[in-house]
Amino acid sequence: MERRDFLKKGLIAGLGVAVGGVTGLKAALGETKDPKLPFPYVKLDPKEIADRAYSEYFKHECCDGVFRTIIDALKEKVGGPYMGIPSLMFWYGGGGIAGWGTVCGTLNGAAAIFNLTCKDFKPMIDTLFEWYQNTQLPTYQPPVCKPGLEKFPKSVAHSPLCHVSVQRWCQVASVFFGRPILYNSKERSERCARLTATVAAKTVELLNAYHFEGFKPKPIKGRQKTKMDCRVCHEAAMKELS
Amino acid sequence: MERRDFLKKGLIAGLGVAVGGVTGLKAALGETKDPKLPFPYVKLDPKEIADRAYSEYFKHECCDGVFRTIIDALKEKVGGPYMGIPSLMFWYGGGGIAGWGTVCGTLNGAAAIFNLTCKDFKPMIDTLFEWYQNTQLPTYQPPVCKPGLEKFPKSVAHSPLCHVSVQRWCQVASVFFGRPILYNSKERSERCARLTATVAAKTVELLNAYHFEGFKPKPIKGRQKTKMDCRVCHEAAMKELS
Repeated sequence: MERRDFLKKGLIAGLGVAVGGVTGLKAALGETKDPKLPFPYVKLDPKEIADRAYSEYFKHECCDGVFRTIIDALKEKVGGPYMGIPSLMFWYGGGGIAGWGTVCGTLNGAAAIFNLTCKDFKPMIDTLFEWYQNTQLPTYQPPVCKPGLEKFPKSVAHSPLCHVSVQRWCQVASVFFGRPILYNSKERSERCARLTATVAAKTVELLNAYHFEGFKPKPIKGRQKTKMDCRVCHEAAMKELS
Repeated sequence: MERRDFLKKGLIAGLGVAVGGVTGLKAALGETKDPKLPFPYVKLDPKEIADRAYSEYFKHECCDGVFRTIIDALKEKVGGPYMGIPSLMFWYGGGGIAGWGTVCGTLNGAAAIFNLTCKDFKPMIDTLFEWYQNTQLPTYQPPVCKPGLEKFPKSVAHSPLCHVSVQRWCQVASVFFGRPILYNSKERSERCARLTATVAAKTVELLNAYHFEGFKPKPIKGRQKTKMDCRVCHEAAMKELS
């Protein structure tokens, strides 16, 4: 058998085992290693990621928009261990997990990416969450805006929670457009698509800084089993924070 | 070359490609498929899962406790597509995501499992979340209780949020033990370990029912971009709900 044939048949035999279950491979070779974290990261382009995340939002919502866009880019550019992770693994996180309005899906997806790619994933999460709740968002503008949505309102969420972030934007948007903008409107959907793009780009900027520019994220100290701002829900300080 | 040698060398060649990156395999074979969801599920034992989840909590917290325990059991019993998923992929979800107190980590981990294993994952999530926020928890009792913790308080969370769930339990526990039980106490940690075991077992019960007993989960209708109970944070109805 020639070298070329041997390699080809070897590949097919090896693949056959893989398709038949890695347990087969495990039995044959004595062990299978759990994929070790963190996975290797290569520099990604925030602008390109943002455009892809914006489109992806309209397929499987916010959490998938951030997670899948970045995972698919890493599958293309790194391959290897990323190939075993289903791209749709974070569909469930949409609307604060299946519409429950808990943690914003963009943050859940981004946090999972930090877990996969950074040894110090917790302060990376802190950095992103703090930025999210204190910044006028969304800042992303799609290449072609839908009619009437060229000028678009931003709001500060003051919280990492989906329904708080959404309701606050709806209040600001209602004033901006001069008519009630509800949580189930197409404007709100457009806002979450642009937010998905904005958070995906910010996640990649932080990853680039961490892996290639010596960025050291700072952990945030919690209180009462949370790092959220208690006043948002628990005092009549809502107006004060606006 | 004998068949046995050929297979052995073939396996090694195939594995060499896999270790060198699936992209190599992709190049060699022309394509690599994204792992297709849902993954196959086999019946798991809720009691065994609960015991393992309880121990796992003390290593990498609540979200990992649920996710890893179930994933590792499926790696052992199914193998195949599960082998590509890092067991520690949901470490980030601990304490409502890196201590932020947003969604309870046990629910985030369980929701990810439903996404991986059920076509109708959204109503499965609804069923688990509703049960979680309306049930006296935790019900799990470890095989050997820590001294002084044989009798253990339960509470109803009225919310899928970590810090709400924790604070409510701390209130009940303080009355139960007759002294202040704080969020950073060892009793609270024990409670979250038992909750991790309880939720992991419930998740597996629901999966067994869905895949083998014809259970059809019912979706819950949301309001104002959430399925949570608004009164928990937004009205002086806390006492009314207690």
